[in-house]
Amino acid sequence: MTKDVIAAILERRSVRRFQPEPVPHAAVGRLIDAARWAPSAGNIQPWQFYVVYNERKKKELASAALNQRFVSEAPVVIVVCVQPEMSASRYRERGRNLYAIQDSAAAVQNILLAAHGYGLGACWVGAFDEALVMEALDLPRGLVPVAILPVGYPAEENRPPARRPVEEIVHVIE
Amino acid sequence: MTKDVIAAILERRSVRRFQPEPVPHAAVGRLIDAARWAPSAGNIQPWQFYVVYNERKKKELASAALNQRFVSEAPVVIVVCVQPEMSASRYRERGRNLYAIQDSAAAVQNILLAAHGYGLGACWVGAFDEALVMEALDLPRGLVPVAILPVGYPAEENRPPARRPVEEIVHVIE
Repeated sequence: MTKDVIAAILERRSVRRFQPEPVPHAAVGRLIDAARWAPSAGNIQPWQFYVVYNERKKKELASAALNQRFVSEAPVVIVVCVQPEMSASRYRERGRNLYAIQDSAAAVQNILLAAHGYGLGACWVGAFDEALVMEALDLPRGLVPVAILPVGYPAEENRPPARRPVEEIVHVIE
Repeated sequence: MTKDVIAAILERRSVRRFQPEPVPHAAVGRLIDAARWAPSAGNIQPWQFYVVYNERKKKELASAALNQRFVSEAPVVIVVCVQPEMSASRYRERGRNLYAIQDSAAAVQNILLAAHGYGLGACWVGAFDEALVMEALDLPRGLVPVAILPVGYPAEENRPPARRPVEEIVHVIE
């Protein structure tokens, strides 16, 4: 048993400060497994996961992520990538521009929730220069990085950020 | 306590056949709450949720979803929408084309996992005619539907669909 799913969803926070201790390879494996079980349009699973322990490569990722230094301070960084053409081959434009992004985002959310479940912390970094990440990881043509996830044991506990009130975002049609 | 987060992630399946009994409003409220706690770029929360109980509107949604009849057979249908311009106003093209879609996809995944946690079933329907959904829900200008989620108590138990093997999707940089 790790943690209740509703509690995990409500209590997960972005973590940007990490303890120096390494994340066991087995734990990283379980995060990737959580990602694999995300749903995807037509079960195409257009994703690839780069698991980066290498210090120099982590620094290149931090630099690609507009110099967000905490990225390189995490013991491990998972870069989630997508092959839009896998989705486009069956679903054309909608696959390329919508499903491929949605599928990989569901995989990211699974990783974040699973990490929280295992007592790890992570942060969804979306602001980065794609070309620099491609270069740092030597990505094959057609593979696009969509999220950088620094992962480690949390060295901070964050308060919940504000959320828009329910009345502002829900519409009931009875 | 509902269900362990890892179990929820691994055992969640798409459900397309539902028992006729209604989903309590309180349960739907908890699903929306799960969605609200998804992360979003800059905490912008560019989402809106339409909760549809109305039979005629559910039929219009099913018809908009390329006549996937099971959509109208669910006791309740949640339509997740996004305002891309909210994200674009801070992050321009990347906000419009990437973050807004990722944020709402994370919210969808939270709904699916929370539903499973509460013993409900749901399915992520992405194949639909946007204009027809906009018309059925009378969406205000600038609001784009990105997912249709029929929700109910499951009347089927599905086997896990195949997943690509780990070796095919993971790359370790040590």
